[in-house]
Amino acid sequence: MIPETILAKIDGNRTRYVDELLAFLKIPSVSTYSVNHKDVRRAAEWVFNHLKRLGFQSSIHETKNHPVVFGQRCKREGAPTLLIYGHYDVQPPEPLEDWCSPPFQPRIHNGCVYARGASDDKGQFFTYLKAIEAILAVEAELPINVKLLIEGEEEIGSPSLLPFLQSHKKLLDADAVAISDTSQFEQGIPAITYGLRGLLYFQVEVTGPRFDLHSGSFGGLVANPVQILAEMISKLKNPDDTVSIPGFYEDVLPLQDWERHEMESLQYNEEELKNYLGVDKLTGERGYSAMERKTARPTLDINGIWGGFSGEGAKTIIPARAGAKVSMRLVPNQKFATISGLFKRYLESLSPKGVQVKVTELNGADPVLVMRDRHSVQAAARAIEIGFGKRPVFIREGGSIPIVNLLQKELGIEDTLLLGWGSPDDGAHSPNEKFSLQDFHRGIRSAAALFYELAPK
Amino acid sequence: MIPETILAKIDGNRTRYVDELLAFLKIPSVSTYSVNHKDVRRAAEWVFNHLKRLGFQSSIHETKNHPVVFGQRCKREGAPTLLIYGHYDVQPPEPLEDWCSPPFQPRIHNGCVYARGASDDKGQFFTYLKAIEAILAVEAELPINVKLLIEGEEEIGSPSLLPFLQSHKKLLDADAVAISDTSQFEQGIPAITYGLRGLLYFQVEVTGPRFDLHSGSFGGLVANPVQILAEMISKLKNPDDTVSIPGFYEDVLPLQDWERHEMESLQYNEEELKNYLGVDKLTGERGYSAMERKTARPTLDINGIWGGFSGEGAKTIIPARAGAKVSMRLVPNQKFATISGLFKRYLESLSPKGVQVKVTELNGADPVLVMRDRHSVQAAARAIEIGFGKRPVFIREGGSIPIVNLLQKELGIEDTLLLGWGSPDDGAHSPNEKFSLQDFHRGIRSAAALFYELAPK
Repeated sequence: MIPETILAKIDGNRTRYVDELLAFLKIPSVSTYSVNHKDVRRAAEWVFNHLKRLGFQSSIHETKNHPVVFGQRCKREGAPTLLIYGHYDVQPPEPLEDWCSPPFQPRIHNGCVYARGASDDKGQFFTYLKAIEAILAVEAELPINVKLLIEGEEEIGSPSLLPFLQSHKKLLDADAVAISDTSQFEQGIPAITYGLRGLLYFQVEVTGPRFDLHSGSFGGLVANPVQILAEMISKLKNPDDTVSIPGFYEDVLPLQDWERHEMESLQYNEEELKNYLGVDKLTGERGYSAMERKTARPTLDINGIWGGFSGEGAKTIIPARAGAKVSMRLVPNQKFATISGLFKRYLESLSPKGVQVKVTELNGADPVLVMRDRHSVQAAARAIEIGFGKRPVFIREGGSIPIVNLLQKELGIEDTLLLGWGSPDDGAHSPNEKFSLQDFHRGIRSAAALFYELAPK
Repeated sequence: MIPETILAKIDGNRTRYVDELLAFLKIPSVSTYSVNHKDVRRAAEWVFNHLKRLGFQSSIHETKNHPVVFGQRCKREGAPTLLIYGHYDVQPPEPLEDWCSPPFQPRIHNGCVYARGASDDKGQFFTYLKAIEAILAVEAELPINVKLLIEGEEEIGSPSLLPFLQSHKKLLDADAVAISDTSQFEQGIPAITYGLRGLLYFQVEVTGPRFDLHSGSFGGLVANPVQILAEMISKLKNPDDTVSIPGFYEDVLPLQDWERHEMESLQYNEEELKNYLGVDKLTGERGYSAMERKTARPTLDINGIWGGFSGEGAKTIIPARAGAKVSMRLVPNQKFATISGLFKRYLESLSPKGVQVKVTELNGADPVLVMRDRHSVQAAARAIEIGFGKRPVFIREGGSIPIVNLLQKELGIEDTLLLGWGSPDDGAHSPNEKFSLQDFHRGIRSAAALFYELAPK
């Protein structure tokens, strides 16, 4: 059980912790943009220097793109080792015009900090660093051995992580992994996430005539790439909102009764959600509740589309080309490699003459289910009760964290603790992303408590 | 019949005429872009000054947006009056990366000038100015009365032209109108166009959630605006490439036998067209030849689409909004006002709950058929034979020239001469727009000859 002196130390340093977080959030570490390459590295160095100051044996590992930061402090022989994973890269901030303040000039408003990466994931993994700092300010040593693995490619599908894991199995060896990249069930109802959806992301490009054509001179003669693309997209979904790709649902594990029951008991407020999102209707696959649809059923989404003229006024052309970003959220036991094949084959069958269709897989991750009866999971539940003053609920989340199945598969670490400090309305990939300063504080307390709950009695 | 001395004068000044055209083409008079507002005015002034130098009574008429340039030289009492219409504004040049040389730095290559506006319409209407100059260099006066009306909003649907016509009926009074904004049937086969398609242009916007959403957290909960838009677009066409809008074909005048026969006799080379366009198949409405489809059948085209993420790599969002530009080419006797109502009603019927759909009409023009047995049309045919050394064929064109029906309706001028000097592969709205210098020269000769053919014997 964590000493009260440490919790008091954390409470006493709230303001300074926030100031440090703001400095970190100012770095525009958008991993998908080449133009931010140096900023991403700056974020890596910021984390590295922070770990060094905490007395961690730290290193920056180069990859083909953005580096991995690693640090360890393993001085408790016989005690378990906890590996903490996080990512210092962030999503692109666009559309910029929808932000109330610039995404990389953090602003505090109504008890929250607004900035890209505030919640996903800079603010969340930073809690562990501050927890460690507070413990070491009071005690001579951490109660367990701690390793940190903070990567810079999570938002682009972690392409360098697999080779890094494969070549550093010994360095990364641990008894459990903690990841704070999910969220509470809702603000004030902390949660441990036991299920995650997988991800599969494609770019689809349709090419027609060699150049944009005058629609007066050529309208009625050639296939229009935007029209073709729209028709292909319309054939990806059935009228009941299920996905039309043949075989898509074949490997989907049906929801078990206890899961449906637990989800029902959480009393998801659909009216509130509609207001928050500004829509007059929630839609989705029939026969499943909103909670089930967003966490335990697979979906397909068009993330973006482009082609032809999108400027001011009118331009009468048949566009030469069009494209779209198409992604799928997968659930156990779907495999992204299998679904990728089904998708490509289906699109090929939909491609008409008169145009070329190119399908490129950008990234993929398998879905995950985590055992809930492990010792470490129970320890995490107690730690959260100390940090938040409330027992956590057990939930599935709709997002994907590729590291989880990679760690399980490559390192054989079965105990994965998905401990979300944030709130589901933090707007992780949206404009005006935020993180509640109270949640930030509770997260630091929970993280510190976790080290003690995992320590041998 | 035009004096040989005038044709000799035209032949002798070929190089200078081209130099003057190049200067005109350097002005980026893109009427749809606010950023080019001053350039559009510069083009108007360029034309105005040119007319003044030719001894025309000239004026610049302000409108809500881009000015109308007018000039007249009416010194032949009793002789007919020809009104020449043209436009000094041009289409946007995008996509810039597809141009072999900058669109507003004219380049001469293989006997053609490459620049935005080279053929549409700067190069074509400029022939009349040079024809007038050549006649006045040899003779004391033009053989007929001549008026010029050169506008700057043709490429955005001529919104200011109707009020201008209505308030200047007397000024614009004429016996016939000549417009060179179409093209030859093919290079070396000159044509008089007796039919034009109408145009109807919309912007369609679909709005879903208040902001872009994380597709992991919200995939499966809300309607995706891009998906909805794609589904709506897919429902605008039937599998046989006809337009699905209920009532769309109701007023379409069937092609007459002689028209289908004349079109057949012109031996349209579909293989060459496919090669030129770089497509493996021509598509379109069944039961009609390519020539019929592109000139005498109505079509619907998506001119552009946008929504969500279109950058490098992956961003996992459900976009907050999506939009498309949708245009239709109409044929006699469709009325754009009627079709506009049908389109809006149909889209409304396709709009699902969960999103807002907004349809904005950007512009419209009715289709046109011109009588071919008029005295002036026969005079034009003889003039073209002098200019090109070949009798013209009579064709319909797929594009729209809103001025034609406006002039007929507002000024009561029945004789409309659509005399295209350009070539159908000039790429009017495409990258690398061009105009053959030989056609430019033949156009000047034909224009000069026209004045004499229209003069009383």
